[in-house]
Amino acid sequence: MRIKEEIGMNNSTGILMVEAIELIKRYDNIYLVSHVQPDGDNIGSTLALAKAIEKFKGGIKVIKVDDIPSDYQFLPGIDMIKNYDINEPIDLLISLDSSDLNRLGLGKEFARKAKRVINIDHHITNDNFGDINIVSPSSAATGEIVYEFIKKMAVDIDKDIATCLYTAISTDTGSFIYSNTTYKTHLIVAELLKVGIDVETININLYQNRSMARTKLFIDSMNSLETYLEGKVGVIAVTQEMLKAYDAKMEDTEGLISFVRGIDSIEVACLLKEIDKNEVKVSLRSKKRIDVSRICNKFNGGGHIRAAGCTINERLPVTKDIILEEILMNFR
Amino acid sequence: MRIKEEIGMNNSTGILMVEAIELIKRYDNIYLVSHVQPDGDNIGSTLALAKAIEKFKGGIKVIKVDDIPSDYQFLPGIDMIKNYDINEPIDLLISLDSSDLNRLGLGKEFARKAKRVINIDHHITNDNFGDINIVSPSSAATGEIVYEFIKKMAVDIDKDIATCLYTAISTDTGSFIYSNTTYKTHLIVAELLKVGIDVETININLYQNRSMARTKLFIDSMNSLETYLEGKVGVIAVTQEMLKAYDAKMEDTEGLISFVRGIDSIEVACLLKEIDKNEVKVSLRSKKRIDVSRICNKFNGGGHIRAAGCTINERLPVTKDIILEEILMNFR
Repeated sequence: MRIKEEIGMNNSTGILMVEAIELIKRYDNIYLVSHVQPDGDNIGSTLALAKAIEKFKGGIKVIKVDDIPSDYQFLPGIDMIKNYDINEPIDLLISLDSSDLNRLGLGKEFARKAKRVINIDHHITNDNFGDINIVSPSSAATGEIVYEFIKKMAVDIDKDIATCLYTAISTDTGSFIYSNTTYKTHLIVAELLKVGIDVETININLYQNRSMARTKLFIDSMNSLETYLEGKVGVIAVTQEMLKAYDAKMEDTEGLISFVRGIDSIEVACLLKEIDKNEVKVSLRSKKRIDVSRICNKFNGGGHIRAAGCTINERLPVTKDIILEEILMNFR
Repeated sequence: MRIKEEIGMNNSTGILMVEAIELIKRYDNIYLVSHVQPDGDNIGSTLALAKAIEKFKGGIKVIKVDDIPSDYQFLPGIDMIKNYDINEPIDLLISLDSSDLNRLGLGKEFARKAKRVINIDHHITNDNFGDINIVSPSSAATGEIVYEFIKKMAVDIDKDIATCLYTAISTDTGSFIYSNTTYKTHLIVAELLKVGIDVETININLYQNRSMARTKLFIDSMNSLETYLEGKVGVIAVTQEMLKAYDAKMEDTEGLISFVRGIDSIEVACLLKEIDKNEVKVSLRSKKRIDVSRICNKFNGGGHIRAAGCTINERLPVTKDIILEEILMNFR
């Protein structure tokens, strides 16, 4: 039986954290789970908490549900993320930065089998799928919640944990420029820097580590930029052919859409990623006015106001027309 | 007569600040001066202090010595920066973010005429040209020193002042990623955010405001990228012809060199800016090993370990050979 507990924007997260820590104390077979297409906040938060629980009582396991992008391979504890057998005993599953069970991929089965599920997240769309739901949409990153959680566990935040948390918070705030960044974000990061983490090396790994393949893909795809509504909407596409030409992967499109949004006239930037002949992943970013999560929700996608995505099962040119029409409607 | 006072890395900045504030109280005709090719730290620090002195006693003037890049036109108080007549009476001149008098351009004459000069800066190469020298190389930005200075003046840091200081600190730390960023940087920025500044709008102005001209110049110049030493050195050039083709200005090269440094193999990125047929401005950035200020010093330039510049009076291809030889020597 699941006891549903929910937390609002400014609710008593502290009590829920204490209850969650009690479960961690009580159970033996504890698993953390990353999500499909893991990003910096997901991987950083997961590894930070894994290392903290390791210090707290040991024996923690981290389930791999998707490939880890090369940008994050430098993170301490990255080898903890492994494949595990669903038939092993599982008592407690902790999910980080996932708004629903489907986001866990094959981790969903582990969640079903677990006696209890702790759900730690900052997405406003979180559906409270856990037995304990520590969901704080006012937090810039799940990493901020995990920072508080580890403090509550009274585990010393060492350099490894601080490096993972810094990565989580930095990547989800675009290095502290997105509107989700608060004074609390900077206070937490100040504490992480006090621990003596190597900010220079972390940031080189996160932001100055673009492969030549990615660089060439970037330049080429930027040449394909099309704009609409007097430059308010910018659309860019990456095809399978382009990936082949530069020996690049789809994850190498990272940073492309931000570059398009960075043009002064642009309000909505759209990146079309051709996954297959009849499958296109759409990423949307907005600057100030348009709620792109609303647009993506129409196609069973989701995300935040300023960053969202969805998948459309059509050919690339058709997808472009479909999403463009929806975007332009939102400017009325 | 000038009373030279110097401050080391960890010296008693506080005492010097109190003395500087005494001079501000004592004198009537007070001028602040920006520097040639002003950047975010220079303009942000200058406007923040100007607004603070305005609240403290009023009557402050800010001397314009060069054009203000469009990125900073949004800053509150930007219209305070004006042309002033050198024949007007001047008692006190305050210089911010300038390592020597030549950096002040025509402001140098104002400095010579002033009864006293206060020199506030964070460059390690600062030659202590003032009567009071508040030079703190451990500060990530001059904006950090100005923050402390305004606190010492007991002037309330309002939204306008906080916006200017945030801009100063953010731009000089590459949005908190450069190695100069400390926990103190984040603590100060947390305080600025508490004031209620509009971080989203500031960051859109600073980092998501690239003109289409700049975007096209970016793409085109990136196509000219040449690499050496198995990709450790990357050289890129912007010619007058390219500027004409895209109706761009030399200030539109902003961000280009960071993009080159952002390639994983690159240790030194070099941007060559053709100012005139026989005049090329060289910008260098390094990642982890090479001290580029040493390279630029050889050509009467200067800067920091990871970011430096110089001017070479030769044609572009000749300049490239000269600077490339010097860079490659540093890899031995």
